[in-house]
Amino acid sequence: MKQSSSNNAVLLISCPDKKGIVLVVTEFLYKNKANIVHLGQHVDSTDDHFFMRVEWELDDFVIPKEKVAEYFKTLIADQYNMEWQLFFTEKKPKMALFVTKMSHCLYDILSRVKSGEWDVEIPFIVSNHESLRPIADRFDIPYHYMPVTKANKKEVEAAQLKMLKDAEVDFIVLARYMQIISDDFITHYPNKIINIHHSFLPAFPGAKPYHSAFNRGVKIIGATSHYVTADLDAGPIIEQDVVRINHSNTIPDMIRKGKDLEKLVLSRGIWHHLKNRVVVHNNKTIVFS
Amino acid sequence: MKQSSSNNAVLLISCPDKKGIVLVVTEFLYKNKANIVHLGQHVDSTDDHFFMRVEWELDDFVIPKEKVAEYFKTLIADQYNMEWQLFFTEKKPKMALFVTKMSHCLYDILSRVKSGEWDVEIPFIVSNHESLRPIADRFDIPYHYMPVTKANKKEVEAAQLKMLKDAEVDFIVLARYMQIISDDFITHYPNKIINIHHSFLPAFPGAKPYHSAFNRGVKIIGATSHYVTADLDAGPIIEQDVVRINHSNTIPDMIRKGKDLEKLVLSRGIWHHLKNRVVVHNNKTIVFS
Amino acid sequence: MKQSSSNNAVLLISCPDKKGIVLVVTEFLYKNKANIVHLGQHVDSTDDHFFMRVEWELDDFVIPKEKVAEYFKTLIADQYNMEWQLFFTEKKPKMALFVTKMSHCLYDILSRVKSGEWDVEIPFIVSNHESLRPIADRFDIPYHYMPVTKANKKEVEAAQLKMLKDAEVDFIVLARYMQIISDDFITHYPNKIINIHHSFLPAFPGAKPYHSAFNRGVKIIGATSHYVTADLDAGPIIEQDVVRINHSNTIPDMIRKGKDLEKLVLSRGIWHHLKNRVVVHNNKTIVFS
Amino acid sequence: MKQSSSNNAVLLISCPDKKGIVLVVTEFLYKNKANIVHLGQHVDSTDDHFFMRVEWELDDFVIPKEKVAEYFKTLIADQYNMEWQLFFTEKKPKMALFVTKMSHCLYDILSRVKSGEWDVEIPFIVSNHESLRPIADRFDIPYHYMPVTKANKKEVEAAQLKMLKDAEVDFIVLARYMQIISDDFITHYPNKIINIHHSFLPAFPGAKPYHSAFNRGVKIIGATSHYVTADLDAGPIIEQDVVRINHSNTIPDMIRKGKDLEKLVLSRGIWHHLKNRVVVHNNKTIVFS
Repeated sequence: MKQSSSNNAVLLISCPDKKGIVLVVTEFLYKNKANIVHLGQHVDSTDDHFFMRVEWELDDFVIPKEKVAEYFKTLIADQYNMEWQLFFTEKKPKMALFVTKMSHCLYDILSRVKSGEWDVEIPFIVSNHESLRPIADRFDIPYHYMPVTKANKKEVEAAQLKMLKDAEVDFIVLARYMQIISDDFITHYPNKIINIHHSFLPAFPGAKPYHSAFNRGVKIIGATSHYVTADLDAGPIIEQDVVRINHSNTIPDMIRKGKDLEKLVLSRGIWHHLKNRVVVHNNKTIVFS
Repeated sequence: MKQSSSNNAVLLISCPDKKGIVLVVTEFLYKNKANIVHLGQHVDSTDDHFFMRVEWELDDFVIPKEKVAEYFKTLIADQYNMEWQLFFTEKKPKMALFVTKMSHCLYDILSRVKSGEWDVEIPFIVSNHESLRPIADRFDIPYHYMPVTKANKKEVEAAQLKMLKDAEVDFIVLARYMQIISDDFITHYPNKIINIHHSFLPAFPGAKPYHSAFNRGVKIIGATSHYVTADLDAGPIIEQDVVRINHSNTIPDMIRKGKDLEKLVLSRGIWHHLKNRVVVHNNKTIVFS
Repeated sequence: MKQSSSNNAVLLISCPDKKGIVLVVTEFLYKNKANIVHLGQHVDSTDDHFFMRVEWELDDFVIPKEKVAEYFKTLIADQYNMEWQLFFTEKKPKMALFVTKMSHCLYDILSRVKSGEWDVEIPFIVSNHESLRPIADRFDIPYHYMPVTKANKKEVEAAQLKMLKDAEVDFIVLARYMQIISDDFITHYPNKIINIHHSFLPAFPGAKPYHSAFNRGVKIIGATSHYVTADLDAGPIIEQDVVRINHSNTIPDMIRKGKDLEKLVLSRGIWHHLKNRVVVHNNKTIVFS
Repeated sequence: MKQSSSNNAVLLISCPDKKGIVLVVTEFLYKNKANIVHLGQHVDSTDDHFFMRVEWELDDFVIPKEKVAEYFKTLIADQYNMEWQLFFTEKKPKMALFVTKMSHCLYDILSRVKSGEWDVEIPFIVSNHESLRPIADRFDIPYHYMPVTKANKKEVEAAQLKMLKDAEVDFIVLARYMQIISDDFITHYPNKIINIHHSFLPAFPGAKPYHSAFNRGVKIIGATSHYVTADLDAGPIIEQDVVRINHSNTIPDMIRKGKDLEKLVLSRGIWHHLKNRVVVHNNKTIVFS
């Protein structure tokens, strides 16, 4: 995939499969002088569903940027019963971070943003503990301490939602946030909340996966980044990776090795999302590359 | 680990941890002129259990081969409450193969044996189908067609056990054998029956793991070789490995990629067993390397 | 990628990049009632070169099978200065095997063919040694013993070329064939001779790569399948893979572990070639997936 | 390997192989009431050289900490012509960082230190550019800007050596430091300077390895951490890892993916060194685990 320039458009399309959709979309773009820099398509043959990602440079494109959505909807999307999303690479997305006490994913994310590897804005960090405030301070990011109890959970989430809306946050990353998000909260950000789970899902969902992995005697451990849904640790998987262990590795060894996996797998998941490469269908992801 | 010569002894030891066990065992060997070619030890700190594998050349060893077990038992093992196994590399082990219809693991095993990569004898192949007989014929191995039904299972297993005992089989490999072995059968070969399961256990136990993996949308699939216990797909794991997939892979793709994993993971599991490197404790394996 | 049906066409295209090529090709297919089952494209931005693979079902296709090449050439390929290849999946390709003394790759290939995993015909095996004849016999494949010396190399290759032409062989696999093929021979099968090299190229080209890897103290070893060119071990790489080793691994250990790599990496390379997924450009491969 | 407690001793031993060395060393320890928490040994059969790592708790050890070296030397090491190193885990090692402009390894290292994952002190960071000073400031580490030219190289290195000696630095990490260290400098820190090279050595030594990898068309890229010797990129390899790429990956893609490899491979190399697990022999490492 070519690197995004600063003024591209990206279309993510999902619809029932029909002959000639690729043709219709590419015709729409070429006739209007798009320079296509990426084109990917996929058909899920289990339910004959079609997916497409196309990215093009807007510089010579005939249709004005603010009219692209309207024209595409009228001329194509409505004819083919498409679900679709349109992104402009010029707009820097806003990502909120939720953390608890473990710092490895947070450090990894902040260093990618500060070094310019990722073109994203972090309006604030939310945490149910004070532990990681010094890191937020080091990186000059606002840190909101919002402890959660059974009693206050509803109002805390309401406050969080208000903050997210006020800051126009595009998506949320749970960087080892040790709280379960309510179903209601999730409905405000469908396929917009990315979690890292410290196991190779569906093995070892829930709490203490490294302890479970140790007890089961597996020879490989893993990590999984996924979109959060109402089913705990069962949302659409974006990325997974694994590392080999053996009988000599204790639980602390596994936690240490696992941290390196977690930060990479979460960061790769965020990267795919940032690049608008992910479409969700039937609780699975299509990740264009 | 140095390659085994043709006249080595291997001790596998498991006992409650105590200071100085390594010293006592190495002293016993050195004082009797053993040339140690491999020495591995491990302590499971969760229950303070000690494990050791030691392999030595018998050529200059003072104690006669047929007395090694007795001397070791009297002088050391009984003092330390050890479970232990003694192997002589001169003796070629006997491995029985159980198969059904899929040939990839069978071919992989037979080609390793015929090419001399493995020093093992295969007295016969058992199958509940006729499908793979031509392969057995190609490789000149006796093939016993023993179909299993609910009604005849008990007597078929009795016949199999008789064949195994008559042939002095040391261990059994289920090379994609699609029958569940009864608990009673298993008690005759504890930690001596190696199975290959076509998933990254504990994810997707039971039937059709590739279908389950496809439906869950995982990004990595795996295979697991393990000793068979009364709990289905829950025995001690010897070896696992994985391969990356993506949304474009269909179930047939996964089956095809999985076959390559299965044959390697099973063959590596068999290799560790053949080399007398595996000790089982608390339903987990210590695999010395 | 969907599985090939028995009556598909595949086009592999390579040409200078120009706007709208995807459009032109897909229009040609759709207007003539092709059902596209795979569409992949790639632009090499270093020299603005365009690559495409498209596979479609011929059943409803308007243009008769024997006219597809002519029509495509006239209507499209000549306009865009394309290099292109057209394949029909109905035709079973013919693959010749060249071997020496090591059997692991040969066994792996033959078992895939015999089990029906690969739909390919092996008209014969050529070897400069007699060692592997028993395997050819087991699998009922003609085996031609053709020893090569400095003196007879030219005439042996001439004889080999005649056999290949007579049998209408499509491509050749060097399955650990320990002879250097002459430049002249190679010109008869450009990008049609697949070799397996037992290192992670470009590290350790030439003879005895495991010895070199051992001496250098690497922590990972690899294998590489590539098309053979006049430059030894420098042809376009199709597939590579690696396995971890450590200080305790001897050269025999590395050879044993490496064999498993070699057979998988070679078989994956052959698979991509068989599926007509590989285009070569600037001594590199584009492998559509 | 068990986690180090705060009061352990570690012996790293290297000597010509002789029967009974393990026995002699373990006897020395047990008779003096050591509680051994790790014991590893290795014989390099190419030149019959013996290696051992043993770690024990000092709490009940009979020999006073300050006398351990003397006793071990007199009673054992001198008899067996051993090279050996003794470490006490109580002493926090000092690590100097050398960097240039790329921040990913620096961030990764600093976050491990600040989060307490690594028990090491960083007295200062040296750089030949000002670029990374803000990061040093964020983490409150002194940053010395020391630009290097052909003309001043000798005196700059002299100044660096003085700083290193003054701060009693134990080892140096070149975290993407884009300057060649002189042979003279290296002699002051033999096997104490760890470098990260952004390729899978010995493939692509020297400058711009990702460009070379792109041009060669490899399917996998790697990174290597190694001790620095007078031969550029040819020192003893501590750790390597790889990541898969394909034809669609541009050089910027490879650089981005490579950064994640580099930081992990460097950090794993540092970890092994920190834990006193590495012995160098014949330009290769034995890494006990």
